[in-house]
Amino acid sequence: MSQYRAPLDDIRFDLFDVLKVESVFPRIGQPETNRELVDAVLEEGARFTGQVLAPLNAIGDQGCGFDKDSGNVTTPAGFAAAYAQFVEGGWPGLNSPAEFGGQGMPHVLGAAIKEMIDAANLAWGNFPLLSHGATEALLHHGTEWQREIFLKPLVEGRWTGTMCLTEPQAGSDLGLLRTRATPNDDGSHSLIGTKIFITAGEHDMAENIVHLVLARLPDAPAGSRGISLFVVPKFKVGKDGAMGERNAVRCGALEHKMGIHGSATCVMNFDGAEGWLVGEPHKGLMAMFTMMNTARLAVGLQGLGLADRAYQNALRYTRERLQMRALSGPKYPDKPADPIIVHPDVRRMLLTQKALVEGGRLLGYHAFLNVDIAGHGEDAAARAEADALVGFLTPIVKACLTEWGNECTSLALQCFGGHGYIAEHGMEQLARDARITTLYEGTTGIQALDLVGRKLLQLKGEGLRVFLKDAQAFIAQEAGNPALAEFLPALGEKLAEWQALSREIGQMASSNPDEIGGAACDYLFYSGYVALACWWAKAVAAADASTRPQAFKDAKRETARFYFARLLPRTLAHKAAIDSGVGNLMGLDADAFG
Amino acid sequence: MSQYRAPLDDIRFDLFDVLKVESVFPRIGQPETNRELVDAVLEEGARFTGQVLAPLNAIGDQGCGFDKDSGNVTTPAGFAAAYAQFVEGGWPGLNSPAEFGGQGMPHVLGAAIKEMIDAANLAWGNFPLLSHGATEALLHHGTEWQREIFLKPLVEGRWTGTMCLTEPQAGSDLGLLRTRATPNDDGSHSLIGTKIFITAGEHDMAENIVHLVLARLPDAPAGSRGISLFVVPKFKVGKDGAMGERNAVRCGALEHKMGIHGSATCVMNFDGAEGWLVGEPHKGLMAMFTMMNTARLAVGLQGLGLADRAYQNALRYTRERLQMRALSGPKYPDKPADPIIVHPDVRRMLLTQKALVEGGRLLGYHAFLNVDIAGHGEDAAARAEADALVGFLTPIVKACLTEWGNECTSLALQCFGGHGYIAEHGMEQLARDARITTLYEGTTGIQALDLVGRKLLQLKGEGLRVFLKDAQAFIAQEAGNPALAEFLPALGEKLAEWQALSREIGQMASSNPDEIGGAACDYLFYSGYVALACWWAKAVAAADASTRPQAFKDAKRETARFYFARLLPRTLAHKAAIDSGVGNLMGLDADAFG
Repeated sequence: MSQYRAPLDDIRFDLFDVLKVESVFPRIGQPETNRELVDAVLEEGARFTGQVLAPLNAIGDQGCGFDKDSGNVTTPAGFAAAYAQFVEGGWPGLNSPAEFGGQGMPHVLGAAIKEMIDAANLAWGNFPLLSHGATEALLHHGTEWQREIFLKPLVEGRWTGTMCLTEPQAGSDLGLLRTRATPNDDGSHSLIGTKIFITAGEHDMAENIVHLVLARLPDAPAGSRGISLFVVPKFKVGKDGAMGERNAVRCGALEHKMGIHGSATCVMNFDGAEGWLVGEPHKGLMAMFTMMNTARLAVGLQGLGLADRAYQNALRYTRERLQMRALSGPKYPDKPADPIIVHPDVRRMLLTQKALVEGGRLLGYHAFLNVDIAGHGEDAAARAEADALVGFLTPIVKACLTEWGNECTSLALQCFGGHGYIAEHGMEQLARDARITTLYEGTTGIQALDLVGRKLLQLKGEGLRVFLKDAQAFIAQEAGNPALAEFLPALGEKLAEWQALSREIGQMASSNPDEIGGAACDYLFYSGYVALACWWAKAVAAADASTRPQAFKDAKRETARFYFARLLPRTLAHKAAIDSGVGNLMGLDADAFG
Repeated sequence: MSQYRAPLDDIRFDLFDVLKVESVFPRIGQPETNRELVDAVLEEGARFTGQVLAPLNAIGDQGCGFDKDSGNVTTPAGFAAAYAQFVEGGWPGLNSPAEFGGQGMPHVLGAAIKEMIDAANLAWGNFPLLSHGATEALLHHGTEWQREIFLKPLVEGRWTGTMCLTEPQAGSDLGLLRTRATPNDDGSHSLIGTKIFITAGEHDMAENIVHLVLARLPDAPAGSRGISLFVVPKFKVGKDGAMGERNAVRCGALEHKMGIHGSATCVMNFDGAEGWLVGEPHKGLMAMFTMMNTARLAVGLQGLGLADRAYQNALRYTRERLQMRALSGPKYPDKPADPIIVHPDVRRMLLTQKALVEGGRLLGYHAFLNVDIAGHGEDAAARAEADALVGFLTPIVKACLTEWGNECTSLALQCFGGHGYIAEHGMEQLARDARITTLYEGTTGIQALDLVGRKLLQLKGEGLRVFLKDAQAFIAQEAGNPALAEFLPALGEKLAEWQALSREIGQMASSNPDEIGGAACDYLFYSGYVALACWWAKAVAAADASTRPQAFKDAKRETARFYFARLLPRTLAHKAAIDSGVGNLMGLDADAFG
């Protein structure tokens, strides 16, 4: 069985030493969130995830129960009890406004807790996950009575939320959706349609489930400009807040999936269900994107969490497993063989995980810190820059952290040899669970289109400009630091190349819009690796400037060296692919592929 | 459910147009294996795998049954009946000597059939897989009576074989194994020990199971020089061939695995089982390597087969699935949306699969053709060169084809979006099944060590020299061919770089043996990508010179362009990693990793 212990030391280093949140929090209206408070939250999060959630992960893999007749879903043994503890601990409202019972703490701290939850038990983490998105949508687009009635129980966690977008014929292309909403006399609407892939669409953990549903009004224009957002509770709720009868929405089936078996992925049938319009008619997609952006960043953390758990276990195994002698001669002559961590190729696999996990953590947390600044920064210009930065980073965080999550869980499994393929070690579950993360909330390809088509071209790369400005300031500031001397020249070159490549794509796309798609994924990964180089350099600088033990500083420096020497060169392949243009993708007719 | 149709057209192109087997077969003592015969075998193989095996693949995923009390294993519904058809069709002895009832056909043809079997049903394919290795071991190392008694039923498929190597404490390091063999008065030995991960160790398909078991004699030296090979049948067999009582070997448990659920992966307990020494005492490891090399090439075909099946389904799905419009404007304005194959990034995923599958097929088949030449070539020098080439190519074929198998099944799943994660489409099974192939018969890391440590350095790169000689002759021959003009300069550069890099590694390793491990995996992939570039250039040349339709020639050329522009640049990253040396892997103490 795989184990998990929250990496508190590295999380603290990232928050306090690299991101310096203590100097940021007062500027986002959070002067009371001091180090002591953050430490207390982190430690309690580590306890809850390590002791309560992690042991339920293997059990969860056995899946949820489903009763066809009632449409009821039974969550795995222990899931509901753990959720009750989660609610009691006040975790659901960690980042929600105090006005509705939340704790109003910064998102960057929420990100650390979220990473721990996903590492400990991704399937379980999916039950509370979308309550946050539902809360956001209602907060920003709901009417006063909707906010009055729905927000408090969502924030408290007594109710959970869902996002009902996908239909069989409408996935990435929500413009194709067919669910209909017909107005009733009392101002409500009746919803008819079928939604699929609904995470936590039905379960036994909460008193009520609040579905945020995309549907078409009778007079809706075709396509994505004719989609409206509705709130549809599992149990009807009166405008006075009183819970009424069961609404006409039920789970028709659970999907059988590759992984996250403990997460209920539901087919939801709306059979004249009572719903209430949220926001303007036909503007539902925009409201939904409010939810989706946070959800995308959150899915990035899922990839990160799984990668870290996998790495922890691979590290333990490679230190214990004795096979063969080191190529340079026995390292433990008293043992029957050396632990496999002596082998350079095993270290290559471990360091790949370590570099992607620790670098990815900074990449992810930094994005969440900018969510805080964008929302609550004192200065309007700073808020605007942070907002652009978050927009630019969101597809990178979502896609890179999840793709790296797949790479790391697979490498960690590989470190176990054949034993990694056997269920009892728990490594294969991590790999199966990780596989969903590059698919839901927008595939990697969709993230890449968002990055290049929207964030780089439509929005003219404002987020990139902000990132580069900060990176160049860092280089200027550390120019004389001997600890950084080996990294800064390569970093400076890559940053300049990134800028030039971004311009090049813009030029290519201006003569052929297909070039956007031709460059998209390679540009996304290219960006991710250069951004990570920046974070590794910053980590070395922060470690060097800190009072941490020499071993900690050494580990950061050696991992940065590995990253610059062996992972950053992946940018060469991505750049070559981008430079080659879209022609080599479009030459074949669809029927000539095979 | 995923579908499968053997890619006969491409297989024929590879055999007849690229590898020109018709000119090779007469020179390996197979003048009777003409085009008509090959075609007949391929077509019957396509029928059997497509109609009999492929439909059982999803059923197989439900797993084997196991009865604890008897130790009996029940294979999935339909598996045994399919095996009976397989035996009746004479498939088990396709490549075995006529002397023992085989058909003695070339291994390169066997490779094509093997690819089809693995694509259709990998788990099923594992039951007959190791009979071939057992046959080889007995053929080359068995006594006359052992060959008399065991070979005929193995070749006919009435009995199946296993390779019993791994023990809990002895995986990659067989020197650590503990199973003991004590001599009996009648010349037999009693074996005591536990073997794990035994593929087809127990099942209900054959009358008897012939275990080839590594164990230690009482006077055995420690380590890998004290290991002997034994043949241990499930039912004892007298020297007269009469089948006797049940031997004291039984299945103690089935492993619960990530995939290949239909394949029985057994814990085998030898409890004083009667066995007979095969070959010389203490020389068992060498005899076992006879089996292992063919098995490694065969596992490469597993990766290839799964990748091809995944690609076929991704192609079908991306042609049918309608989502969004092409970036350059609607391509099918009469439909609600365009099929997703119009999108450049979807094409990138498809072309990656197509390039790796079709190129990988040539890489694999070519290795098997050289197994034929090494074994039966008329000319001693040609046999020696082919043998060196096979030795060099084996780790590349095994590791690259299986790693690409993982990449392709994952990309194909990705083409399905969220639907790829759902069991009913069958894509996630292919990805789970593929995951074993980089682990068993030696992990990718073990292959890489074999390539660099043994084939490149110990054997002084003789196999590489043979490959390069042939490649350079090809370049010289095609120098004036306009169809090749766009590929040959890049290919020539890469071949020269490959040679230089190989020398560089030798120099680095001479001063520090750890450099072998530091370069191993990156050198293996580097080599795989350069070899594939060579095969893609050859495919273009062969297509161009053939009488095939223009569309076929165009498809080869466009895929080669894609390969050279977008996949071959991966060598840049691998080269940079090699050049960086092992220092960046060895800097951290084992306890400083986290």
